[in-house]
Amino acid sequence: MITCLAGGVGAARFLEGLVRAVPPADITAVVNTGDDTVLHGLHISPDLDTVTYTLAGAINREMGWGLEGESWAAMEALERYGGETWFRLGDRDLATHLYRTHQLGQGAPLSEVTAQITRAWGLELTLLPMTDDRVATRIKPPGREAIGFQEWFVGERHATPVEAVEFEGIAASTPAPGVIAALSDAEVVVVCPSNPIVSIGPILGVPGVADALRARRESVVAVSPIIAGKALKGPADTLMADLGHEASVAGVARLYAEVAGTLVVDEADHDQVAAVEAEGMRCVVTPTVMNGSESAAALASTVLGAAILDSGR
Amino acid sequence: MITCLAGGVGAARFLEGLVRAVPPADITAVVNTGDDTVLHGLHISPDLDTVTYTLAGAINREMGWGLEGESWAAMEALERYGGETWFRLGDRDLATHLYRTHQLGQGAPLSEVTAQITRAWGLELTLLPMTDDRVATRIKPPGREAIGFQEWFVGERHATPVEAVEFEGIAASTPAPGVIAALSDAEVVVVCPSNPIVSIGPILGVPGVADALRARRESVVAVSPIIAGKALKGPADTLMADLGHEASVAGVARLYAEVAGTLVVDEADHDQVAAVEAEGMRCVVTPTVMNGSESAAALASTVLGAAILDSGR
Repeated sequence: MITCLAGGVGAARFLEGLVRAVPPADITAVVNTGDDTVLHGLHISPDLDTVTYTLAGAINREMGWGLEGESWAAMEALERYGGETWFRLGDRDLATHLYRTHQLGQGAPLSEVTAQITRAWGLELTLLPMTDDRVATRIKPPGREAIGFQEWFVGERHATPVEAVEFEGIAASTPAPGVIAALSDAEVVVVCPSNPIVSIGPILGVPGVADALRARRESVVAVSPIIAGKALKGPADTLMADLGHEASVAGVARLYAEVAGTLVVDEADHDQVAAVEAEGMRCVVTPTVMNGSESAAALASTVLGAAILDSGR
Repeated sequence: MITCLAGGVGAARFLEGLVRAVPPADITAVVNTGDDTVLHGLHISPDLDTVTYTLAGAINREMGWGLEGESWAAMEALERYGGETWFRLGDRDLATHLYRTHQLGQGAPLSEVTAQITRAWGLELTLLPMTDDRVATRIKPPGREAIGFQEWFVGERHATPVEAVEFEGIAASTPAPGVIAALSDAEVVVVCPSNPIVSIGPILGVPGVADALRARRESVVAVSPIIAGKALKGPADTLMADLGHEASVAGVARLYAEVAGTLVVDEADHDQVAAVEAEGMRCVVTPTVMNGSESAAALASTVLGAAILDSGR
């Protein structure tokens, strides 16, 4: 059994590789829901959907979100009303949100709805939301009130500087059913190459999660989303810098050292091994850029190998 | 100024005629919202939308609901999840519900959202929901719990017999802003050829509405939706019969006599004039089947003429 902590695109790509390296039924992904938002009355879980659509082979690869071959009739019609269309919801994607919202409205927890949705897409791995409770990542720009994560990430294209990040509701949240067991019982836990602050941060913030990882730190392997000081995609680098972290693999190591024993970094950072080790983590150097499921599978194998070697030491 | 009490399809067709007979800006329609429902978390107002889409020339005429040239990608995708698809929501139609739900969620009253939506469609007449409060028409079949109106009307194709109809929340509701003034100040009030029980019934049930009509009964004209004992469309006839009313123009007259001075009936009921008059209403006989906006405009003119003649007596 392998358990992964997952955000959106980077995690989805890693998981695409992992399901080629390990039987999917042996994989559990604990997915960030801090990005979840309610738009037009619909409950939207961007990270859960990105992982689901990617593993179902249905993601729009160019955009990195949404469904391939999607149509946009609803959004176009919403423009007639001057409605909020900055968060684009495709027609078929809408069905996911309609279904989720309906089921949640009937009292089903998000974890149950997620299981139904992934089953409908034929996924064999288990996706667990980090919590069934409502946690909302909020971004505070300097000199302004905090705004919702999606308003910042999509609405402002994450171009606005960030003074602080808060996870509303997290202290009172509890891990979704199965999360702690999946973290404790797995042979290996992988922290996917996701944004350490706003993708992995909320998962680690759910009470009990970080403790479960600390208790088995030696077989927890994180993959750095930062390569040579830059995020391949998204704002991990600028966000880390804005919040006073070094946007480097050493900066990532500092964030993860308490919960993970090993950091996997890209070859471009081969000269940073000592810096990572100085933070108390082992460091494995390997190609981490995933251009397809081949390279993702290779990365997954290396990550698993590193964990098993490490924990076997 | 003309004010109409309106349900869905029959009212929409009548209003299509009325806007040819009277400047649209002089028309207010008070629309039933008892049919409103929440599906997939979205607030759906079927009668408001049917009237809006019809007057915008955008209705699907064959179906009598929804938009012409609609696409169904969201519903088809919802089937993947085994979601509830008995109430078909087209992709562009969804935008209306997304917009309405969002605005209501922001605290806007339904009347304000309705004004925004009708403005977006270029309508010049005023549509007012009967109330900004939540009123839910519920249908009680014999030997079963009451079900939501749409579950009965769409889900069970109104084939299930009805023991009772209730309007949940109506006693505590108040007329939407402008409703009472529109009813009191109009030169003529028209009760459109809509279902007397479940379309006009809820409107009359909102506290203050029936009183406002009683106070000016002589210039209130109702158009019978029953022709020769049958409803042209929908379950008005069977519903009246189920509830112990005669499914005839005389039965309609009995339901409306307190609030309307005149009943307009179809030529097919020319032999029912005495029966209508026996209920205390004047009776005007004219073709009432609306095959297009020509015949609807002719009916509208006759209805207005009847009201003005009557109130001038």
